[in-house]
Amino acid sequence: MHELSVAIPDSSLSDEQTRRDKSIKIGQFARACSIFRVKRIYIYHDSLSQFERDDLDLLMTILRYLDTPQYLRKVLYPRMPQLEYAGMLHPIKAPHHKPLEDIKKVKAGDVRIGVIAKIKGQLFVEVGLESLVLFTGQGFEGKKVNAKFIAPYPNLEAVEAREDDIFGYWGYEVKEVSSLGKLLTGAENAEIIITSRKGSHFKNLESKFVERAKKAKNIVVVFGSPKHGIHDIVAKEGSSVKQYEFVTNMFPNQGTETVRLEEAVFGTLAILNDSLSQSDRAARFK
Amino acid sequence: MHELSVAIPDSSLSDEQTRRDKSIKIGQFARACSIFRVKRIYIYHDSLSQFERDDLDLLMTILRYLDTPQYLRKVLYPRMPQLEYAGMLHPIKAPHHKPLEDIKKVKAGDVRIGVIAKIKGQLFVEVGLESLVLFTGQGFEGKKVNAKFIAPYPNLEAVEAREDDIFGYWGYEVKEVSSLGKLLTGAENAEIIITSRKGSHFKNLESKFVERAKKAKNIVVVFGSPKHGIHDIVAKEGSSVKQYEFVTNMFPNQGTETVRLEEAVFGTLAILNDSLSQSDRAARFK
Repeated sequence: MHELSVAIPDSSLSDEQTRRDKSIKIGQFARACSIFRVKRIYIYHDSLSQFERDDLDLLMTILRYLDTPQYLRKVLYPRMPQLEYAGMLHPIKAPHHKPLEDIKKVKAGDVRIGVIAKIKGQLFVEVGLESLVLFTGQGFEGKKVNAKFIAPYPNLEAVEAREDDIFGYWGYEVKEVSSLGKLLTGAENAEIIITSRKGSHFKNLESKFVERAKKAKNIVVVFGSPKHGIHDIVAKEGSSVKQYEFVTNMFPNQGTETVRLEEAVFGTLAILNDSLSQSDRAARFK
Repeated sequence: MHELSVAIPDSSLSDEQTRRDKSIKIGQFARACSIFRVKRIYIYHDSLSQFERDDLDLLMTILRYLDTPQYLRKVLYPRMPQLEYAGMLHPIKAPHHKPLEDIKKVKAGDVRIGVIAKIKGQLFVEVGLESLVLFTGQGFEGKKVNAKFIAPYPNLEAVEAREDDIFGYWGYEVKEVSSLGKLLTGAENAEIIITSRKGSHFKNLESKFVERAKKAKNIVVVFGSPKHGIHDIVAKEGSSVKQYEFVTNMFPNQGTETVRLEEAVFGTLAILNDSLSQSDRAARFK
Protein backbone atom coordinates (compact mmCIF):
# COMPACT_ATOMS: atom_id res chain seq x y z
CA MET A 1 0.00 0.00 0.00
CA HIS A 2 1.52 3.30 -0.93
CA GLU A 3 0.58 6.58 0.64
CA LEU A 4 0.26 9.90 -1.09
CA SER A 5 1.72 13.07 0.40
CA VAL A 6 1.63 16.63 -0.84
CA ALA A 7 4.15 19.36 0.04
CA ILE A 8 3.15 23.00 -0.27
CA PRO A 9 5.04 26.05 0.98
CA ASP A 10 4.20 28.17 4.02
CA SER A 11 3.91 31.03 1.51
CA SER A 12 0.97 29.34 -0.23
CA LEU A 13 -1.40 32.17 0.68
CA SER A 14 0.91 35.02 -0.26
CA ASP A 15 -1.03 35.95 -3.39
CA GLU A 16 -4.34 36.42 -1.56
CA GLN A 17 -5.17 39.64 0.20
CA THR A 18 -8.08 38.95 2.54
CA ARG A 19 -8.71 36.29 5.14
CA ARG A 20 -11.81 35.33 3.22
CA ASP A 21 -9.88 34.70 0.00
CA LYS A 22 -7.13 32.88 1.87
CA SER A 23 -9.78 30.69 3.49
CA ILE A 24 -11.34 29.86 0.13
CA LYS A 25 -7.94 28.83 -1.22
CA ILE A 26 -7.30 26.60 1.79
CA GLY A 27 -10.72 25.03 1.24
CA GLN A 28 -9.66 24.20 -2.30
CA PHE A 29 -6.46 22.52 -1.04
CA ALA A 30 -8.49 20.50 1.46
CA ARG A 31 -10.98 19.37 -1.18
CA ALA A 32 -8.25 18.40 -3.66
CA CYS A 33 -6.31 16.43 -1.05
CA SER A 34 -9.44 14.63 0.14
CA ILE A 35 -10.77 13.76 -3.31
CA PHE A 36 -7.44 12.19 -4.20
CA ARG A 37 -6.90 10.52 -0.82
CA VAL A 38 -3.84 12.39 0.33
CA LYS A 39 -2.55 11.01 3.62
CA ARG A 40 -0.21 13.80 4.62
CA ILE A 41 0.05 17.50 3.76
CA TYR A 42 3.51 18.87 4.47
CA ILE A 43 3.89 22.60 4.78
CA TYR A 44 7.50 23.45 4.16
CA HIS A 45 9.26 26.73 4.80
CA ASP A 46 9.80 28.74 1.63
CA SER A 47 12.93 30.71 2.41
CA LEU A 48 12.51 32.96 -0.63
CA SER A 49 9.24 34.49 0.59
CA GLN A 50 8.66 36.63 3.62
CA PHE A 51 7.44 34.42 6.44
CA GLU A 52 3.91 35.24 7.58
CA ARG A 53 3.10 33.53 10.86
CA ASP A 54 -0.60 34.36 10.49
CA ASP A 55 -0.82 32.72 7.09
CA LEU A 56 0.82 29.54 8.34
CA ASP A 57 -1.53 29.42 11.33
CA LEU A 58 -4.52 29.97 9.09
CA LEU A 59 -3.38 27.28 6.67
CA MET A 60 -2.77 24.63 9.32
CA THR A 61 -5.87 25.46 11.33
CA ILE A 62 -8.36 25.43 8.47
CA LEU A 63 -6.83 22.35 6.83
CA ARG A 64 -7.16 20.44 10.12
CA TYR A 65 -10.58 21.83 10.86
CA LEU A 66 -11.97 20.75 7.49
CA ASP A 67 -10.57 17.24 7.97
CA THR A 68 -12.32 16.95 11.36
CA PRO A 69 -15.75 15.27 11.51
CA GLN A 70 -18.52 17.79 12.17
CA TYR A 71 -19.41 16.27 15.53
CA LEU A 72 -15.92 16.90 16.92
CA ARG A 73 -15.49 20.45 15.68
CA LYS A 74 -17.08 22.12 18.69
CA VAL A 75 -15.02 19.95 21.04
CA LEU A 76 -11.70 20.57 19.31
CA TYR A 77 -12.14 24.11 17.99
CA PRO A 78 -13.16 26.93 20.28
CA ARG A 79 -14.27 30.12 18.56
CA MET A 80 -11.15 31.46 16.93
CA PRO A 81 -10.52 34.18 14.36
CA GLN A 82 -8.87 31.75 11.94
CA LEU A 83 -12.20 29.98 11.50
CA GLU A 84 -14.21 33.12 10.71
CA TYR A 85 -14.90 31.93 7.16
CA ALA A 86 -14.51 28.19 7.67
CA GLY A 87 -18.27 27.70 7.84
CA MET A 88 -18.78 28.85 4.26
CA LEU A 89 -16.21 26.47 2.76
CA HIS A 90 -17.33 23.41 0.84
CA PRO A 91 -17.47 20.37 3.11
CA ILE A 92 -15.26 17.35 2.49
CA LYS A 93 -17.78 14.51 2.98
CA ALA A 94 -15.27 11.69 3.21
CA PRO A 95 -15.82 8.31 4.93
CA HIS A 96 -14.29 9.47 8.22
CA HIS A 97 -16.83 12.30 8.39
CA LYS A 98 -19.61 10.19 9.82
CA PRO A 99 -22.90 11.80 10.68
CA LEU A 100 -24.30 11.92 14.19
CA GLU A 101 -25.82 8.53 14.75
CA ASP A 102 -28.32 6.73 16.96
CA ILE A 103 -26.23 5.01 19.60
CA LYS A 104 -28.33 1.86 19.22
CA LYS A 105 -27.36 1.50 15.58
CA VAL A 106 -23.63 1.30 16.11
CA LYS A 107 -22.25 -2.14 15.31
CA ALA A 108 -19.25 -3.99 16.66
CA GLY A 109 -16.32 -3.30 14.31
CA ASP A 110 -17.51 0.20 13.36
CA VAL A 111 -14.81 2.85 13.63
CA ARG A 112 -15.41 6.52 14.37
CA ILE A 113 -12.98 9.33 15.03
CA GLY A 114 -13.22 10.41 18.65
CA VAL A 115 -11.67 12.53 21.34
CA ILE A 116 -10.79 11.07 24.74
CA ALA A 117 -12.47 12.42 27.89
CA LYS A 118 -11.58 11.41 31.44
CA ILE A 119 -14.31 11.19 34.07
CA LYS A 120 -13.50 10.09 37.61
CA GLY A 121 -10.37 8.35 36.44
CA GLN A 122 -12.14 6.43 33.67
CA LEU A 123 -11.51 7.08 29.97
CA PHE A 124 -14.37 7.71 27.53
CA VAL A 125 -14.53 8.83 23.91
CA GLU A 126 -16.73 11.49 22.34
CA VAL A 127 -17.60 9.95 18.98
CA GLY A 128 -20.74 11.83 17.88
CA LEU A 129 -23.29 9.50 19.43
CA GLU A 130 -25.75 10.70 22.07
CA SER A 131 -23.38 9.96 24.90
CA LEU A 132 -19.76 9.26 25.63
CA VAL A 133 -18.57 5.71 25.12
CA LEU A 134 -16.37 3.75 27.49
CA PHE A 135 -12.82 3.58 26.12
CA THR A 136 -10.46 0.77 27.04
CA GLY A 137 -6.88 1.55 26.24
CA GLN A 138 -4.10 4.07 26.50
CA GLY A 139 -4.79 7.74 26.04
CA PHE A 140 -5.16 11.12 27.64
CA GLU A 141 -7.90 13.70 27.81
CA GLY A 142 -8.24 15.58 24.50
CA LYS A 143 -6.37 13.00 22.42
CA LYS A 144 -7.86 12.33 18.99
CA VAL A 145 -8.23 8.59 18.38
CA ASN A 146 -9.82 6.19 15.95
CA ALA A 147 -12.26 4.37 18.20
CA LYS A 148 -13.40 0.88 17.25
CA PHE A 149 -16.49 -0.49 18.94
CA ILE A 150 -16.04 -3.99 20.29
CA ALA A 151 -19.55 -4.45 21.63
CA PRO A 152 -22.86 -2.84 20.63
CA TYR A 153 -25.37 -0.95 22.77
CA PRO A 154 -26.17 -1.29 25.65
CA ASN A 155 -22.67 -2.61 26.36
CA LEU A 156 -21.03 -0.21 23.94
CA GLU A 157 -17.28 -0.14 24.45
CA ALA A 158 -14.46 1.14 22.29
CA VAL A 159 -10.76 0.45 21.85
CA GLU A 160 -8.22 2.16 19.64
CA ALA A 161 -8.58 0.93 16.06
CA ARG A 162 -5.63 -0.57 14.23
CA GLU A 163 -4.84 0.51 10.71
CA ASP A 164 -6.47 -2.54 9.19
CA ASP A 165 -9.72 -1.89 11.03
CA ILE A 166 -10.23 1.16 8.85
CA PHE A 167 -11.84 1.00 5.44
CA GLY A 168 -11.99 3.81 2.95
CA TYR A 169 -10.16 7.13 2.90
CA TRP A 170 -9.59 8.37 6.44
CA GLY A 171 -8.39 11.94 5.99
CA TYR A 172 -5.02 13.65 6.05
CA GLU A 173 -2.51 14.81 8.61
CA VAL A 174 -0.93 18.26 8.40
CA LYS A 175 2.75 18.60 9.23
CA GLU A 176 5.07 21.56 9.28
CA VAL A 177 8.62 21.01 8.01
CA SER A 178 11.48 23.47 8.30
CA SER A 179 12.85 22.97 4.80
CA LEU A 180 12.05 21.16 1.61
CA GLY A 181 15.50 19.56 1.57
CA LYS A 182 14.94 18.07 5.00
CA LEU A 183 11.58 16.67 3.95
CA LEU A 184 12.88 15.15 0.75
CA THR A 185 16.10 13.66 2.06
CA GLY A 186 14.13 12.20 4.95
CA ALA A 187 11.50 10.59 2.71
CA GLU A 188 12.06 6.83 2.85
CA ASN A 189 11.03 4.37 0.21
CA ALA A 190 9.42 7.27 -1.61
CA GLU A 191 9.04 8.44 -5.18
CA ILE A 192 9.22 12.20 -5.33
CA ILE A 193 7.49 14.30 -7.95
CA ILE A 194 8.69 17.87 -8.29
CA THR A 195 6.15 19.96 -10.19
CA SER A 196 7.72 22.71 -12.25
CA ARG A 197 6.92 24.53 -15.42
CA LYS A 198 10.53 23.91 -16.38
CA GLY A 199 10.13 20.15 -16.05
CA SER A 200 9.45 17.47 -18.67
CA HIS A 201 5.92 16.74 -19.79
CA PHE A 202 4.54 14.23 -17.35
CA LYS A 203 3.36 12.08 -20.26
CA ASN A 204 6.98 11.43 -21.13
CA LEU A 205 7.79 10.26 -17.60
CA GLU A 206 4.54 8.48 -16.87
CA SER A 207 5.32 4.87 -17.66
CA LYS A 208 8.56 5.00 -15.69
CA PHE A 209 6.81 6.69 -12.81
CA VAL A 210 3.96 4.17 -12.71
CA GLU A 211 6.48 1.31 -12.59
CA ARG A 212 8.35 2.95 -9.74
CA ALA A 213 5.19 3.79 -7.87
CA LYS A 214 4.32 0.11 -7.70
CA LYS A 215 7.37 -0.52 -5.56
CA ALA A 216 7.23 2.66 -3.48
CA LYS A 217 5.68 2.96 -0.06
CA ASN A 218 5.23 6.70 -0.40
CA ILE A 219 4.63 9.19 -3.15
CA VAL A 220 5.46 12.79 -2.33
CA VAL A 221 4.26 15.53 -4.69
CA VAL A 222 5.99 18.88 -4.27
CA PHE A 223 4.65 22.28 -5.30
CA GLY A 224 6.38 25.65 -5.50
CA SER A 225 5.04 28.89 -4.13
CA PRO A 226 2.81 31.44 -5.85
CA LYS A 227 5.90 33.57 -6.46
CA HIS A 228 8.79 31.14 -6.77
CA GLY A 229 9.27 27.86 -8.57
CA ILE A 230 10.79 24.82 -6.93
CA HIS A 231 14.07 25.30 -8.80
CA ASP A 232 14.64 28.61 -7.04
CA ILE A 233 13.42 27.44 -3.64
CA VAL A 234 15.69 24.40 -3.72
CA ALA A 235 18.61 26.50 -5.01
CA LYS A 236 18.16 28.93 -2.12
CA GLU A 237 18.48 25.94 0.22
CA GLY A 238 21.86 25.27 -1.42
CA SER A 239 20.69 22.24 -3.33
CA SER A 240 19.49 21.43 -6.84
CA VAL A 241 16.45 19.76 -8.36
CA LYS A 242 18.77 17.89 -10.72
CA GLN A 243 19.03 15.06 -8.23
CA TYR A 244 15.33 14.31 -8.65
CA GLU A 245 14.24 12.08 -11.45
CA PHE A 246 10.66 13.22 -11.76
CA VAL A 247 10.72 16.97 -12.31
CA THR A 248 7.62 17.49 -14.32
CA ASN A 249 5.40 20.05 -15.97
CA MET A 250 1.87 18.83 -15.48
CA PHE A 251 0.33 21.55 -17.67
CA PRO A 252 2.13 21.57 -21.01
CA ASN A 253 1.04 24.22 -23.53
CA GLN A 254 -0.85 26.18 -20.91
CA GLY A 255 -3.06 28.88 -22.40
CA THR A 256 -2.60 31.34 -19.55
CA GLU A 257 0.46 33.09 -18.20
CA THR A 258 0.25 31.24 -14.89
CA VAL A 259 -1.36 28.24 -13.27
CA ARG A 260 -2.32 29.10 -9.71
CA LEU A 261 -1.13 26.91 -6.84
CA GLU A 262 -4.61 25.64 -5.92
CA GLU A 263 -5.18 24.81 -9.59
CA ALA A 264 -1.82 23.07 -9.86
CA VAL A 265 -2.57 20.95 -6.80
CA PHE A 266 -5.94 19.84 -8.13
CA GLY A 267 -4.78 19.20 -11.68
CA THR A 268 -1.63 17.37 -10.66
CA LEU A 269 -3.43 15.08 -8.24
CA ALA A 270 -6.10 14.39 -10.87
CA ILE A 271 -3.44 13.38 -13.39
CA LEU A 272 -1.57 11.17 -10.92
CA ASN A 273 -4.79 9.52 -9.76
CA ASP A 274 -5.65 8.75 -13.35
CA SER A 275 -2.16 7.42 -14.07
CA LEU A 276 -2.07 5.19 -11.05
CA SER A 277 -5.62 3.90 -11.47
CA GLN A 278 -4.37 1.51 -14.13
CA SER A 279 -1.87 -0.10 -11.81
CA ASP A 280 -2.84 -1.91 -8.66
CA ARG A 281 -3.20 1.35 -6.80
CA ALA A 282 -6.91 1.03 -6.19
CA ALA A 283 -6.42 -2.20 -4.32
CA ARG A 284 -3.45 -1.03 -2.33
CA PHE A 285 -4.54 2.46 -1.53
CA LYS A 286 -6.93 2.87 1.29
CA MET B 1 -5.72 21.10 -35.76
CA HIS B 2 -8.40 19.99 -33.38
CA GLU B 3 -10.41 22.29 -31.20
CA LEU B 4 -11.53 21.64 -27.67
CA SER B 5 -15.07 22.39 -26.51
CA VAL B 6 -16.66 21.99 -23.12
CA ALA B 7 -20.39 21.55 -22.45
CA ILE B 8 -21.81 22.46 -19.04
CA PRO B 9 -25.48 22.74 -18.05
CA ASP B 10 -27.46 25.92 -17.47
CA SER B 11 -27.97 24.57 -13.94
CA SER B 12 -24.23 24.76 -13.24
CA LEU B 13 -24.74 27.33 -10.49
CA SER B 14 -27.65 25.61 -8.77
CA ASP B 15 -25.61 24.50 -5.77
CA GLU B 16 -24.41 28.00 -4.90
CA GLN B 17 -26.56 30.37 -2.89
CA THR B 18 -25.13 33.84 -3.33
CA ARG B 19 -24.16 35.88 -6.36
CA ARG B 20 -20.70 36.13 -4.91
CA ASP B 21 -20.27 32.35 -4.68
CA LYS B 22 -21.79 31.85 -8.13
CA SER B 23 -19.34 34.42 -9.51
CA ILE B 24 -16.39 32.62 -7.91
CA LYS B 25 -17.49 29.35 -9.48
CA ILE B 26 -17.80 30.98 -12.92
CA GLY B 27 -14.32 32.41 -12.45
CA GLN B 28 -13.05 28.88 -11.87
CA PHE B 29 -14.70 27.67 -15.08
CA ALA B 30 -13.14 30.54 -17.00
CA ARG B 31 -9.68 29.84 -15.60
CA ALA B 32 -9.91 26.10 -16.32
CA CYS B 33 -11.09 26.66 -19.89
CA SER B 34 -8.38 29.22 -20.55
CA ILE B 35 -5.52 27.22 -19.04
CA PHE B 36 -6.44 24.26 -21.23
CA ARG B 37 -7.18 26.32 -24.34
CA VAL B 38 -10.87 25.63 -24.70
CA LYS B 39 -12.25 27.18 -27.87
CA ARG B 40 -15.97 26.95 -27.12
CA ILE B 41 -18.04 26.68 -23.95
CA TYR B 42 -21.51 25.31 -24.67
CA ILE B 43 -24.17 25.88 -22.07
CA TYR B 44 -26.87 23.31 -22.61
CA HIS B 45 -30.33 23.22 -21.08
CA ASP B 46 -30.60 20.72 -18.24
CA SER B 47 -34.25 19.72 -18.35
CA LEU B 48 -34.07 17.94 -15.00
CA SER B 49 -33.31 21.11 -13.04
CA GLN B 50 -35.47 24.14 -12.56
CA PHE B 51 -34.47 26.75 -15.11
CA GLU B 52 -33.05 29.91 -13.54
CA ARG B 53 -32.80 32.71 -16.10
CA ASP B 54 -30.68 34.81 -13.74
CA ASP B 55 -28.12 32.05 -13.32
CA LEU B 56 -27.80 31.55 -17.06
CA ASP B 57 -27.38 35.30 -17.60
CA LEU B 58 -24.76 35.46 -14.88
CA LEU B 59 -22.88 32.48 -16.29
CA MET B 60 -22.78 33.78 -19.86
CA THR B 61 -22.03 37.36 -18.89
CA ILE B 62 -19.14 36.65 -16.53
CA LEU B 63 -17.61 34.00 -18.79
CA ARG B 64 -17.59 36.45 -21.69
CA TYR B 65 -16.43 39.33 -19.53
CA LEU B 66 -13.45 37.39 -18.22
CA ASP B 67 -12.45 36.40 -21.75
CA THR B 68 -12.50 40.06 -22.86
CA PRO B 69 -9.21 42.02 -22.84
CA GLN B 70 -9.15 44.59 -20.03
CA TYR B 71 -9.01 47.52 -22.43
CA LEU B 72 -12.33 46.57 -24.03
CA ARG B 73 -14.28 45.88 -20.86
CA LYS B 74 -15.46 49.44 -20.33
CA VAL B 75 -16.51 49.69 -23.97
CA LEU B 76 -18.41 46.41 -24.04
CA TYR B 77 -19.73 46.16 -20.49
CA PRO B 78 -21.69 48.99 -18.95
CA ARG B 79 -22.20 48.83 -15.18
CA MET B 80 -24.45 45.83 -14.67
CA PRO B 81 -25.48 43.85 -11.61
CA GLN B 82 -24.10 40.60 -13.03
CA LEU B 83 -20.59 42.04 -12.83
CA GLU B 84 -20.82 43.11 -9.18
CA TYR B 85 -18.14 40.58 -8.14
CA ALA B 86 -16.33 40.20 -11.47
CA GLY B 87 -13.58 42.55 -10.36
CA MET B 88 -12.45 40.25 -7.57
CA LEU B 89 -12.11 37.16 -9.77
CA HIS B 90 -8.69 35.88 -10.78
CA PRO B 91 -7.69 37.30 -14.16
CA ILE B 92 -7.09 35.03 -17.14
CA LYS B 93 -3.86 36.53 -18.53
CA ALA B 94 -3.93 34.75 -21.88
CA PRO B 95 -2.20 35.92 -25.09
CA HIS B 96 -5.31 37.72 -26.39
CA HIS B 97 -5.40 39.82 -23.21
CA LYS B 98 -2.83 42.32 -24.40
CA PRO B 99 -1.91 45.25 -22.20
CA LEU B 100 -2.51 48.85 -23.19
CA GLU B 101 0.33 49.70 -25.49
CA ASP B 102 2.20 52.68 -26.92
CA ILE B 103 0.75 53.19 -30.38
CA LYS B 104 4.24 53.71 -31.79
CA LYS B 105 5.32 50.24 -30.75
CA VAL B 106 2.69 48.34 -32.68
CA LYS B 107 4.19 46.36 -35.54
CA ALA B 108 2.71 45.28 -38.87
CA GLY B 109 1.31 41.79 -38.40
CA ASP B 110 0.36 42.30 -34.73
CA VAL B 111 -3.17 41.24 -33.91
CA ARG B 112 -5.32 42.75 -31.15
CA ILE B 113 -8.94 42.19 -30.28
CA GLY B 114 -10.94 45.30 -31.06
CA VAL B 115 -14.39 46.77 -31.30
CA ILE B 116 -15.51 48.65 -34.39
CA ALA B 117 -16.51 52.31 -34.16
CA LYS B 118 -17.97 54.38 -36.98
CA ILE B 119 -17.09 58.04 -37.27
CA LYS B 120 -18.45 60.15 -40.13
CA GLY B 121 -19.02 57.06 -42.23
CA GLN B 122 -15.50 55.74 -41.68
CA LEU B 123 -14.77 52.54 -39.68
CA PHE B 124 -12.22 52.50 -36.89
CA VAL B 125 -11.28 49.95 -34.23
CA GLU B 126 -10.76 50.48 -30.51
CA VAL B 127 -7.83 48.19 -29.76
CA GLY B 128 -6.41 49.54 -26.50
CA LEU B 129 -3.89 51.95 -28.00
CA GLU B 130 -4.07 55.66 -27.29
CA SER B 131 -6.39 56.30 -30.17
CA LEU B 132 -8.73 54.55 -32.56
CA VAL B 133 -7.15 52.89 -35.58
CA LEU B 134 -8.43 53.11 -39.14
CA PHE B 135 -10.17 49.84 -40.08
CA THR B 136 -10.43 48.66 -43.66
CA GLY B 137 -13.00 45.95 -44.13
CA GLN B 138 -16.51 44.85 -43.42
CA GLY B 139 -18.12 45.49 -40.07
CA PHE B 140 -20.56 47.48 -38.06
CA GLU B 141 -20.36 49.66 -35.00
CA GLY B 142 -19.90 47.59 -31.83
CA LYS B 143 -18.72 44.44 -33.61
CA LYS B 144 -15.87 42.59 -31.91
CA VAL B 145 -13.09 41.77 -34.37
CA ASN B 146 -9.54 40.51 -34.45
CA ALA B 147 -7.73 43.47 -35.93
CA LYS B 148 -4.43 42.90 -37.73
CA PHE B 149 -2.19 45.90 -38.33
CA ILE B 150 -0.94 46.16 -41.89
CA ALA B 151 1.15 49.28 -41.46
CA PRO B 152 2.82 50.75 -38.36
CA TYR B 153 2.47 54.24 -36.87
CA PRO B 154 2.05 56.91 -38.19
CA ASN B 155 0.18 55.12 -40.99
CA LEU B 156 -1.39 52.58 -38.63
CA GLU B 157 -4.17 50.71 -40.35
CA ALA B 158 -5.98 47.50 -39.49
CA VAL B 159 -7.87 44.79 -41.34
CA GLU B 160 -9.70 41.78 -40.00
CA ALA B 161 -7.22 39.02 -39.12
CA ARG B 162 -7.56 35.57 -40.62
CA GLU B 163 -7.25 32.53 -38.42
CA ASP B 164 -3.65 31.88 -39.42
CA ASP B 165 -2.62 35.41 -38.44
CA ILE B 166 -3.24 34.49 -34.83
CA PHE B 167 -0.64 32.78 -32.67
CA GLY B 168 -1.23 31.34 -29.24
CA TYR B 169 -4.45 30.70 -27.39
CA TRP B 170 -7.06 33.27 -28.32
CA GLY B 171 -9.87 32.74 -25.83
CA TYR B 172 -13.21 30.98 -25.94
CA GLU B 173 -16.68 31.61 -27.28
CA VAL B 174 -19.76 30.99 -25.15
CA LYS B 175 -22.80 29.44 -26.82
CA GLU B 176 -26.19 28.51 -25.48
CA VAL B 177 -27.75 25.28 -26.79
CA SER B 178 -31.28 24.11 -26.18
CA SER B 179 -30.44 20.49 -25.48
CA LEU B 180 -27.49 18.22 -25.05
CA GLY B 181 -28.82 15.86 -27.71
CA LYS B 182 -28.95 18.64 -30.25
CA LEU B 183 -25.38 19.66 -29.45
CA LEU B 184 -24.01 16.15 -29.66
CA THR B 185 -25.82 14.99 -32.78
CA GLY B 186 -24.80 18.23 -34.47
CA ALA B 187 -21.10 17.85 -33.59
CA GLU B 188 -19.24 17.06 -36.79
CA ASN B 189 -15.95 15.28 -37.02
CA ALA B 190 -15.88 15.26 -33.25
CA GLU B 191 -14.87 12.89 -30.51
CA ILE B 192 -17.24 13.22 -27.58
CA ILE B 193 -16.26 12.53 -23.99
CA ILE B 194 -19.10 12.06 -21.54
CA THR B 195 -17.88 12.44 -17.97
CA SER B 196 -19.76 10.30 -15.50
CA ARG B 197 -19.03 8.58 -12.25
CA LYS B 198 -20.71 5.53 -13.77
CA GLY B 199 -18.28 5.49 -16.71
CA SER B 200 -15.09 3.48 -17.27
CA HIS B 201 -11.79 4.63 -15.83
CA PHE B 202 -10.33 7.01 -18.37
CA LYS B 203 -7.02 5.15 -18.19
CA ASN B 204 -8.71 2.17 -19.78
CA LEU B 205 -10.00 4.24 -22.70
CA GLU B 206 -7.03 6.55 -23.06
CA SER B 207 -5.02 4.91 -25.83
CA LYS B 208 -8.10 4.50 -28.00
CA PHE B 209 -9.14 8.06 -27.31
CA VAL B 210 -5.73 9.48 -28.14
CA GLU B 211 -5.73 7.62 -31.47
CA ARG B 212 -9.17 8.93 -32.32
CA ALA B 213 -8.33 12.45 -31.25
CA LYS B 214 -5.56 12.56 -33.82
CA LYS B 215 -8.11 12.30 -36.59
CA ALA B 216 -10.81 14.45 -35.06
CA LYS B 217 -11.36 18.11 -35.78
CA ASN B 218 -13.21 18.67 -32.52
CA ILE B 219 -13.20 17.27 -29.04
CA VAL B 220 -16.30 17.93 -26.97
CA VAL B 221 -16.18 17.23 -23.24
CA VAL B 222 -19.57 17.00 -21.55
CA PHE B 223 -20.31 17.51 -17.86
CA GLY B 224 -23.46 16.80 -15.86
CA SER B 225 -25.08 19.17 -13.43
CA PRO B 226 -24.44 19.57 -9.71
CA LYS B 227 -27.57 17.52 -9.04
CA HIS B 228 -27.90 15.15 -11.99
CA GLY B 229 -25.47 12.99 -13.88
CA ILE B 230 -25.33 12.87 -17.65
CA HIS B 231 -27.07 9.48 -17.73
CA ASP B 232 -30.21 10.99 -16.24
CA ILE B 233 -30.07 14.21 -18.25
CA VAL B 234 -29.72 12.32 -21.52
CA ALA B 235 -32.43 9.85 -20.49
CA LYS B 236 -34.81 12.71 -19.76
CA GLU B 237 -34.17 13.89 -23.33
CA GLY B 238 -35.38 10.48 -24.47
CA SER B 239 -31.93 9.26 -25.45
CA SER B 240 -29.17 7.14 -23.94
CA VAL B 241 -25.47 7.56 -23.26
CA LYS B 242 -24.93 4.03 -24.54
CA GLN B 243 -24.39 5.37 -28.04
CA TYR B 244 -21.26 7.21 -26.90
CA GLU B 245 -18.01 5.36 -26.85
CA PHE B 246 -16.17 7.48 -24.32
CA VAL B 247 -18.28 7.56 -21.18
CA THR B 248 -15.65 7.97 -18.54
CA ASN B 249 -15.04 8.40 -14.85
CA MET B 250 -12.11 10.78 -14.57
CA PHE B 251 -11.82 10.41 -10.78
CA PRO B 252 -11.66 6.71 -9.94
CA ASN B 253 -11.52 5.81 -6.24
CA GLN B 254 -12.51 9.30 -5.17
CA GLY B 255 -12.04 9.89 -1.45
CA THR B 256 -15.04 12.19 -1.06
CA GLU B 257 -18.74 11.65 -1.62
CA THR B 258 -18.84 14.07 -4.53
CA VAL B 259 -16.58 15.87 -6.98
CA ARG B 260 -17.94 19.35 -7.59
CA LEU B 261 -18.59 20.54 -11.14
CA GLU B 262 -15.85 23.19 -11.11
CA GLU B 263 -13.44 20.54 -9.80
CA ALA B 264 -14.55 18.03 -12.42
CA VAL B 265 -14.00 20.57 -15.20
CA PHE B 266 -10.49 21.42 -14.03
CA GLY B 267 -9.42 17.84 -13.33
CA THR B 268 -10.86 16.46 -16.55
CA LEU B 269 -9.25 19.10 -18.72
CA ALA B 270 -5.92 18.59 -16.92
CA ILE B 271 -6.05 14.85 -17.61
CA LEU B 272 -7.00 15.31 -21.27
CA ASN B 273 -4.31 17.93 -21.77
CA ASP B 274 -1.76 15.55 -20.32
CA SER B 275 -3.01 12.67 -22.46
CA LEU B 276 -2.95 14.63 -25.66
CA SER B 277 0.40 16.27 -24.99
CA GLN B 278 2.11 13.08 -26.10
CA SER B 279 0.46 13.12 -29.48
CA ASP B 280 1.00 15.91 -31.97
CA ARG B 281 -1.53 18.07 -30.20
CA ALA B 282 0.91 20.76 -29.20
CA ALA B 283 1.79 21.42 -32.79
CA ARG B 284 -1.73 21.32 -34.08
CA PHE B 285 -3.49 23.14 -31.30
CA LYS B 286 -3.33 26.87 -31.39
